[in-house]
Amino acid sequence: MSPTQKNYLISLGQKARAASRKLAAANTSIKNRALHLMAKSVRAGQDRILSANALDIAAARDKGLGQALVKRLELDQVKIEAMARGLEEVAALPDPVGEVVTGWRRPNGLEINQIRVPFGVIAVIYESRPNVSSDAAALALKAGNAVILRGGSETLTTNRTLVDLLSGTLAAAGLPAEALQLVADPDRHLVEGLLGMRDYVDLVIPRGGAGLIRMVVEKARVPVIETGVGNCHVYVDERADLNKAKRIVINAKVSNPAACNAAETLLVHEAVAARLLPDLLAELRQMGVEIRGCDKTRSLFGGQLADGVQAVTEEDWSTEYLDLILAVKVVGGLEEAVEHIRRYGTRHSEAIVTDDYGRARRFTEAIDAAVVYVNASTRFTDGHEFGFGAEVGISTQKLHVRGP
Amino acid sequence: MSPTQKNYLISLGQKARAASRKLAAANTSIKNRALHLMAKSVRAGQDRILSANALDIAAARDKGLGQALVKRLELDQVKIEAMARGLEEVAALPDPVGEVVTGWRRPNGLEINQIRVPFGVIAVIYESRPNVSSDAAALALKAGNAVILRGGSETLTTNRTLVDLLSGTLAAAGLPAEALQLVADPDRHLVEGLLGMRDYVDLVIPRGGAGLIRMVVEKARVPVIETGVGNCHVYVDERADLNKAKRIVINAKVSNPAACNAAETLLVHEAVAARLLPDLLAELRQMGVEIRGCDKTRSLFGGQLADGVQAVTEEDWSTEYLDLILAVKVVGGLEEAVEHIRRYGTRHSEAIVTDDYGRARRFTEAIDAAVVYVNASTRFTDGHEFGFGAEVGISTQKLHVRGP
Repeated sequence: MSPTQKNYLISLGQKARAASRKLAAANTSIKNRALHLMAKSVRAGQDRILSANALDIAAARDKGLGQALVKRLELDQVKIEAMARGLEEVAALPDPVGEVVTGWRRPNGLEINQIRVPFGVIAVIYESRPNVSSDAAALALKAGNAVILRGGSETLTTNRTLVDLLSGTLAAAGLPAEALQLVADPDRHLVEGLLGMRDYVDLVIPRGGAGLIRMVVEKARVPVIETGVGNCHVYVDERADLNKAKRIVINAKVSNPAACNAAETLLVHEAVAARLLPDLLAELRQMGVEIRGCDKTRSLFGGQLADGVQAVTEEDWSTEYLDLILAVKVVGGLEEAVEHIRRYGTRHSEAIVTDDYGRARRFTEAIDAAVVYVNASTRFTDGHEFGFGAEVGISTQKLHVRGP
Repeated sequence: MSPTQKNYLISLGQKARAASRKLAAANTSIKNRALHLMAKSVRAGQDRILSANALDIAAARDKGLGQALVKRLELDQVKIEAMARGLEEVAALPDPVGEVVTGWRRPNGLEINQIRVPFGVIAVIYESRPNVSSDAAALALKAGNAVILRGGSETLTTNRTLVDLLSGTLAAAGLPAEALQLVADPDRHLVEGLLGMRDYVDLVIPRGGAGLIRMVVEKARVPVIETGVGNCHVYVDERADLNKAKRIVINAKVSNPAACNAAETLLVHEAVAARLLPDLLAELRQMGVEIRGCDKTRSLFGGQLADGVQAVTEEDWSTEYLDLILAVKVVGGLEEAVEHIRRYGTRHSEAIVTDDYGRARRFTEAIDAAVVYVNASTRFTDGHEFGFGAEVGISTQKLHVRGP
């Protein structure tokens, strides 16, 4: 990092710190007014956003980025409207600041209240999806924090326009414009710089793939909320309702395979494998899911197919496919399933399908994950599904907060 | 770190991970039984502990360690009995594991429960006081965690004996002995190794001085609960009850100056400085407190003394004395006090003395610290005072948990 870059970061940090103090003292109606103005500004600025986005897309194509990646950074009218509505939804959420979580009086008369307060300055480091800019800004501001955003270099023009439009409304609501800033230098070294600014950054949230999260955890000197890597399992027990099991597995795998809470591996009790797998796997294949099976799975199911079932490898067990691929293993029982999940799981979302009360209890106690499900799909791990309204990500770390 | 040392650490980690699973599933009565057996074992092993401690003390004196440091690592019958009683007190505390913090049902029928679970494996890194070994072990085990302890090298013999006595009782209670382990190699590199073991350590808690905490934050790849550095302030407002103010300042400075929650700087509103300071500072001096004052303090008070009052320096404002020294500053008002605390405070414990409701509110909102007091001493920041029973330290970081 050059001295100029260092000074740039420190200046961002100092402005964010000063702004955070005003944000922390801002009452709910001021913050909500800002969020509504932001929504308006995003809608009114649609053309500017789309032009900026077109430049990013053209540059990405020139660089030869893959179609899937280009797709991710592409905005359209629907996505821009979704951003605006997201801002309004966050305005409608309750304000966490000042909530008295609990309070008590000690025998000596000391009165103690535990009160929710803002973090101060939150840095969000993300990859190509530009809608994270408005989502993260909205949630952080609502909770009384200043935000420093650092998106992917391939969406810098889009993010710059977005942050311009969003932060440009803050003054009108009576809040400092510096409450929302973007690191506008694409040099990777600035991310490392940001991760070390213990005086100016109170929390960093990485949002993206496993590589980004690993890098942040490795380099950060500020506290991190780890989000996202989800190698999630569904275990179908001997005592499962097999119709329920089918619906849960299909939902967990197919409803949004690119999501971190999608199932990647299906574990099936050997006593029900012969009854469950042939139908279920045939149905999944019809939906475009590639099956990678253990030997038992292949002997149970593969024989029916001209092309058979691909053999699963050790690497598959620890892979978050984020795609229409499912690894399948027949296990001897609950304990083998628990051992498998302990070994390969990422402590995100894990599910058991069973009608046996004792086994459900054993699974929920033995499995260490942000969310453990009984007879429900891993796909429910989501801020909206939990009733929280919105989310920055799914925390898989163990210090508060854990989950959506 | 040599390959042998690396293997040693990994082996500690693997054993701790395996033990943590049994601990997590252990019910309250088993854990309490273990704690009571530990207390018995500490009492019965008093002679062994004292002999081991005598060896550490002799070695420390040979190395020329200062008297204060030697004092810290010294155990006696009273301290050993306090350890045993501490273990029994933790047994008497409620078990946090399994507590349903909150729960709700979604419109689609999904039932969500937020349940307290153990961390898994906790590493505690501490300095010379050997009683941390039993305190930290007791709290971690009660909360269903395996523990890896790493004390100061100057108390290795004492800690080895203590951990032997403590972990030796676990099997009799039906728990794995590996739930409590000590890093018995004094090489500093092993601390760094421990801080990087993301597969085997879920949380690290440094307990000690600013240097230790800085080192841990700098090197850790596992989540950290930062504890302890307390540059705490008492601000006496214009509208304060001056008798109350005196008692609070004296308590905050004198009752245990070596504690992290002791006040280091007194800020006084200029309107009451002339009435408060001469008496208060004279009284503090009689109690052995050295005063380091700003110019106004010196002109108000110093004139009465043959030797005057030492001038405070910029360095004093950011020093945690942990000693009978008090920096004193006369300020123009509440906002100057807030600015001073924001600049020099360590977000530990901060107090205002005032009878003005609005100023009390402004102070509690503007000051970002683990605990903010109105008309009470900073010394109340303590697990026992809060009614929690026991504590590993005072967390000054902002991810959960914050405070004792």
